[in-house]
Amino acid sequence: MGKTINIGMIGTGFMGRAHSNAYLQAARFFDLPLRPVLHAACGRDQARLQQFARKMGWKRTASSVEELMEDEEIQLIDICTPNDMHLPLALSAAKAGKHILCEKPLARNVREAAAMYEAVRDTGIFHMVVFNYRFLSAVRLAKKAIDEGRIGEIRHFDAVYYQDWLLDPAFPIVWRHEATASGSGANGDMHAHTVDLARYLCGEIEAVNGFQKTFIKSRPLPGGKGTGEVSTDDASLFLAAFHNGAVGSFRASRLATGRKNHLSFEIYGSEGALCFNLERPNELQFYSLQDEAAYQGYRNILTTDASHPYMSAWWPVGHNLGWEHTFIHQVKELIEGIAEGKKASPDFYDGLKCQEVLDAVISSAQKGSWTEVKSTYADTI
Amino acid sequence: MGKTINIGMIGTGFMGRAHSNAYLQAARFFDLPLRPVLHAACGRDQARLQQFARKMGWKRTASSVEELMEDEEIQLIDICTPNDMHLPLALSAAKAGKHILCEKPLARNVREAAAMYEAVRDTGIFHMVVFNYRFLSAVRLAKKAIDEGRIGEIRHFDAVYYQDWLLDPAFPIVWRHEATASGSGANGDMHAHTVDLARYLCGEIEAVNGFQKTFIKSRPLPGGKGTGEVSTDDASLFLAAFHNGAVGSFRASRLATGRKNHLSFEIYGSEGALCFNLERPNELQFYSLQDEAAYQGYRNILTTDASHPYMSAWWPVGHNLGWEHTFIHQVKELIEGIAEGKKASPDFYDGLKCQEVLDAVISSAQKGSWTEVKSTYADTI
Amino acid sequence: MGKTINIGMIGTGFMGRAHSNAYLQAARFFDLPLRPVLHAACGRDQARLQQFARKMGWKRTASSVEELMEDEEIQLIDICTPNDMHLPLALSAAKAGKHILCEKPLARNVREAAAMYEAVRDTGIFHMVVFNYRFLSAVRLAKKAIDEGRIGEIRHFDAVYYQDWLLDPAFPIVWRHEATASGSGANGDMHAHTVDLARYLCGEIEAVNGFQKTFIKSRPLPGGKGTGEVSTDDASLFLAAFHNGAVGSFRASRLATGRKNHLSFEIYGSEGALCFNLERPNELQFYSLQDEAAYQGYRNILTTDASHPYMSAWWPVGHNLGWEHTFIHQVKELIEGIAEGKKASPDFYDGLKCQEVLDAVISSAQKGSWTEVKSTYADTI
Amino acid sequence: MGKTINIGMIGTGFMGRAHSNAYLQAARFFDLPLRPVLHAACGRDQARLQQFARKMGWKRTASSVEELMEDEEIQLIDICTPNDMHLPLALSAAKAGKHILCEKPLARNVREAAAMYEAVRDTGIFHMVVFNYRFLSAVRLAKKAIDEGRIGEIRHFDAVYYQDWLLDPAFPIVWRHEATASGSGANGDMHAHTVDLARYLCGEIEAVNGFQKTFIKSRPLPGGKGTGEVSTDDASLFLAAFHNGAVGSFRASRLATGRKNHLSFEIYGSEGALCFNLERPNELQFYSLQDEAAYQGYRNILTTDASHPYMSAWWPVGHNLGWEHTFIHQVKELIEGIAEGKKASPDFYDGLKCQEVLDAVISSAQKGSWTEVKSTYADTI
Repeated sequence: MGKTINIGMIGTGFMGRAHSNAYLQAARFFDLPLRPVLHAACGRDQARLQQFARKMGWKRTASSVEELMEDEEIQLIDICTPNDMHLPLALSAAKAGKHILCEKPLARNVREAAAMYEAVRDTGIFHMVVFNYRFLSAVRLAKKAIDEGRIGEIRHFDAVYYQDWLLDPAFPIVWRHEATASGSGANGDMHAHTVDLARYLCGEIEAVNGFQKTFIKSRPLPGGKGTGEVSTDDASLFLAAFHNGAVGSFRASRLATGRKNHLSFEIYGSEGALCFNLERPNELQFYSLQDEAAYQGYRNILTTDASHPYMSAWWPVGHNLGWEHTFIHQVKELIEGIAEGKKASPDFYDGLKCQEVLDAVISSAQKGSWTEVKSTYADTI
Repeated sequence: MGKTINIGMIGTGFMGRAHSNAYLQAARFFDLPLRPVLHAACGRDQARLQQFARKMGWKRTASSVEELMEDEEIQLIDICTPNDMHLPLALSAAKAGKHILCEKPLARNVREAAAMYEAVRDTGIFHMVVFNYRFLSAVRLAKKAIDEGRIGEIRHFDAVYYQDWLLDPAFPIVWRHEATASGSGANGDMHAHTVDLARYLCGEIEAVNGFQKTFIKSRPLPGGKGTGEVSTDDASLFLAAFHNGAVGSFRASRLATGRKNHLSFEIYGSEGALCFNLERPNELQFYSLQDEAAYQGYRNILTTDASHPYMSAWWPVGHNLGWEHTFIHQVKELIEGIAEGKKASPDFYDGLKCQEVLDAVISSAQKGSWTEVKSTYADTI
Repeated sequence: MGKTINIGMIGTGFMGRAHSNAYLQAARFFDLPLRPVLHAACGRDQARLQQFARKMGWKRTASSVEELMEDEEIQLIDICTPNDMHLPLALSAAKAGKHILCEKPLARNVREAAAMYEAVRDTGIFHMVVFNYRFLSAVRLAKKAIDEGRIGEIRHFDAVYYQDWLLDPAFPIVWRHEATASGSGANGDMHAHTVDLARYLCGEIEAVNGFQKTFIKSRPLPGGKGTGEVSTDDASLFLAAFHNGAVGSFRASRLATGRKNHLSFEIYGSEGALCFNLERPNELQFYSLQDEAAYQGYRNILTTDASHPYMSAWWPVGHNLGWEHTFIHQVKELIEGIAEGKKASPDFYDGLKCQEVLDAVISSAQKGSWTEVKSTYADTI
Repeated sequence: MGKTINIGMIGTGFMGRAHSNAYLQAARFFDLPLRPVLHAACGRDQARLQQFARKMGWKRTASSVEELMEDEEIQLIDICTPNDMHLPLALSAAKAGKHILCEKPLARNVREAAAMYEAVRDTGIFHMVVFNYRFLSAVRLAKKAIDEGRIGEIRHFDAVYYQDWLLDPAFPIVWRHEATASGSGANGDMHAHTVDLARYLCGEIEAVNGFQKTFIKSRPLPGGKGTGEVSTDDASLFLAAFHNGAVGSFRASRLATGRKNHLSFEIYGSEGALCFNLERPNELQFYSLQDEAAYQGYRNILTTDASHPYMSAWWPVGHNLGWEHTFIHQVKELIEGIAEGKKASPDFYDGLKCQEVLDAVISSAQKGSWTEVKSTYADTI
């Protein structure tokens, strides 16, 4: 691991910490072809930036995004900002010829996502979106099971992403409540994950029929200066028709009392079924019609064996991984992809395809009827 | 229990057995004001009828429905037939002045359900629909918790009813596949239960947005005489808006691999949450924001204590009841209601209100857009 | 089912109700070769007896045990009394040449159990002990799996039977607290079940090493007349060595807070494992090394399919049975056994073998060391 | 965090990796008073040592233990070797005046553990044993609940530690099978954890009654050179009497098919109960008699809230931690303890007390009877 890859990060929040940690841990637990170096970090709040950089081990801070983009030693830009900054930052990075890792959702809407994709499509830039739950051992095993035909033709893909952090009406307005900053609420933030998992595991979605709700329509402004209007959805639900004939059901809410980070999916096929719940991330449920009739049942597979995806790098069987490991696994793929000149998966195109679904959900919710998921590029399905 | 109530039953299948058993067991475990007598049973297939009557202890069989209706000793008609017979039988029974217990769904559609309701509305007839899951101890406890304000204002009502008995493409056509006999497939058969539970626990539904699917479009005819077309839905999903502002999500399927009788609901409110799964019928999950923050969690309540609804009649705490007990509890309410001249709950009006939702689901699925649930009677909400 | 078998029952409590129900239900759901008739019931408290007999449908009551024994129409005596009456009643019944069904534990100690066994051994009397949990579909399936070699050679048999009904120090003294009436506390009452399941599923126990505890040493006398001393154990735990080399662990308590009727076992073998919990009686967990490595996991089998033991007599798959069904299944075996002249399983010999273990546990707890389980009859292993 | 603490580690295996990672991550996620520096690592196999040091970021390797001990820059010695090396290494480290972190079990037996304790007792050396499961958020919450009186007086402490990595008879002999290297098998390796948790949560153990078993008595030697005899136990079970009157049950096995790292405990008290399972490390079950009767049930607490121990340093609620975080939390306590001159918890005295129980288990298993847990130091209870 003599060669290095220098990273420039924008954003110092929750995701900035998770990504920083991932670079350091990936190098420690996997044999990476390039050693990731926390080269420079950048953020709006200087005090917070300094503390972040020191804690996470960034070699230096940059005083502006431009400084990062112009730094020739930086090969990879990591975008951990609110959603409204994704587009301009990605365009700058692309212009500077840097590889890009961007948080989800890729953008606030399809128009932005398409612009981002076009900026990198015909370049040699490695572009990747952080749909980190693809990199869970259990999700990879589910993918493998599906690809091996173990559950046959898929009929139902049901996904839920429930949290409850907006239950308290006194919880103040943050950028996630402002459509201009975030694009949408539960829809973009939470369905981004489940729609990506749906595409990964079940294929493209043809049409959707959505329903959105803001239960608490005004909230205190931060700092006790009156109240502001919530312009994003607290909950977003939709039904979906997949190209392969499967029926989809998606639910997301930030007021699902008692659910903390409850992302779960159930996939029912002609030969079996698979179920997963992020609150128990080291487990995958598998039902197989190949089992003898009297002994059929949902198997609870602990996906911590060396035979399971990513796990040989870690601990002996039964020694659980946590949430942060999803990023570590994704960084492994990122670094390997860059070193080997591979196409990323998921890349900006995946981010765009996900965004096409998310926008269609909003559109259908507004119209109150089924809405086709429009492909931005006819030729790319 | 010196006084008796004589029952005439039509139908000798799965439900006929469940109801017969319920009359006998209710008398044994509860102190009923009237002793139910299995007076006469009637069915199309005479051999099957004889066997059924003998096994279940019916005093005699009737050779025709008319014979039952004309039998002055019979006070209660119990309708356990396929759905297409519900209307004519209920009309006959009403005309004969007999109390009526009718299997769900009340009818094949709103028109029929309304006709049934009108036939009994202004009479002294006691009319009840077998939404038996209302009579689970866990469901009654959920109702109690809601009425006591324990979960506050309801935001989400999610229900699923999944089975997998139609997975095998070689499973032949039965009456449940024929729209003329059944009205619909998973929609009417399965959502009937979850919609009733939704109304019972969360209130009336204002509008729905449905999606129906028949995965396996033709099936063998019974007796190996070629194949027939399936005219009912294998799966039915819909989103719902409740009058109280809650958001609903309903899923039903007969091809949900590995799910056998998986009726579950999750109710999220401003103060707590309640979850139930019929595959574990003696358990209710309860989450309360009243618990201290660090000790909040979903409680798994075993609803088998003498303090729980219906349970003091049975066994010591922890000694589980099964599926058949739902009918026994409903029969207890039925007999007490008749004896005391009370209004039934759920009655034909509930059956009609449920049907209004089911029809709206079909209509919305056909139109591909939100459909208002039309109230047949403006004055009765 | 023209022929009948007339039953005489002694005891009108919890078990009397469960057995009465079982006779009636077995006839309704199974094709029995003899129709059980609730001929005559007997009990100490006349008011309670009359109510019991009326509710459960007993044709008549008997004013004394002698009257039952002398009634030539009675073919089967069912003993549902406290444990101290088992011996004299069984001896009377045997003398009268009647078949016998006796509640567990068979007796208060080995001496009594052996006397009971000897009284019936060389007669044509059908004798059976109510180890009702053998008759759960899940337990039968576990037995089948073991017999088919699915879990290989057994290494661990762990059983727990936890309840909490004695938690409250104000709970008064009942016969179960008096060694003279009950023989022992948790030991005889609760381990009777788990030891029987151990013998059924894993084979004979060679030696035990027990520990008993009475946490609450005095309790109020009924009727508020001061306090009395508790002469039985609240909790009994023991380690066991099986003849086949397996290691056993058994725990029973009546002060295991939050556990209501929590009888569970875990069986670990060289090729797989099986787990069961009576609080979820329709489920069996099965782990198989025959599954592909990456897909191994505990399967949760819903044992409600028509292919599962006893289930074809009941409802469609997924429609759960409850606790009372264990007795119904045992009565089916009882009636068939009598009609066909078969040996009962479990019979009084099984009751005796179980008692040999229970007595050894008490003895080892008193001595504080391993104690061999002495076989009363050398020739019968 | 200007000041540093230099670490010298011996051992490059599974535990060496876990500890190395913990030092690095603790500094990143907690505000430590001293920055841990991976100063020098030492191990028998030089090639492995070099790779280990490079991957984990050790500044240098040492060619001998002596070199480490003599290095004046090193303040803390971390012992991650097989058990037989714990004593000599701790004595060397103590002689060199260095703080010591030692893997569990502290030693092979009480004699060694006492020698280790005596070597540090009257010095200013900070000595700590890696009973890492004390540092789970769920376990800390359990401790807090107990200390707050939430479960009252403890009656039952049941613990199990089951794995299945020795199921395959072809699994070769490793040092853990050799009594000379390891002291014992499942007993010392696995019960070390559960006995420590028992002491931490329930108090001291007065007497034990054990049973040990080696199911597979010979195994292949590594490298295919014939077979060797297994001199340690595959399984170890014991009953225990606590000083406070509680009854204990402990089971450990390496042939519990399907169990991977299944460490669980159940604690039943007069006012409530607590249950934990390491295969779901972010959950704690809590039952409280303070809840209203009809709403009592086991609560499943996700111990990932900022209000839960250690969690404010990590991610938002619901974002799970894994196994490795236990070490990170312990290192936080270690570094803070050293900086603040506090007594460690758990320290070598805890390691010795644990060893007293482990030795008593072996002794009792050999004698076949209850054995008192002898306190090495009368004055220190």
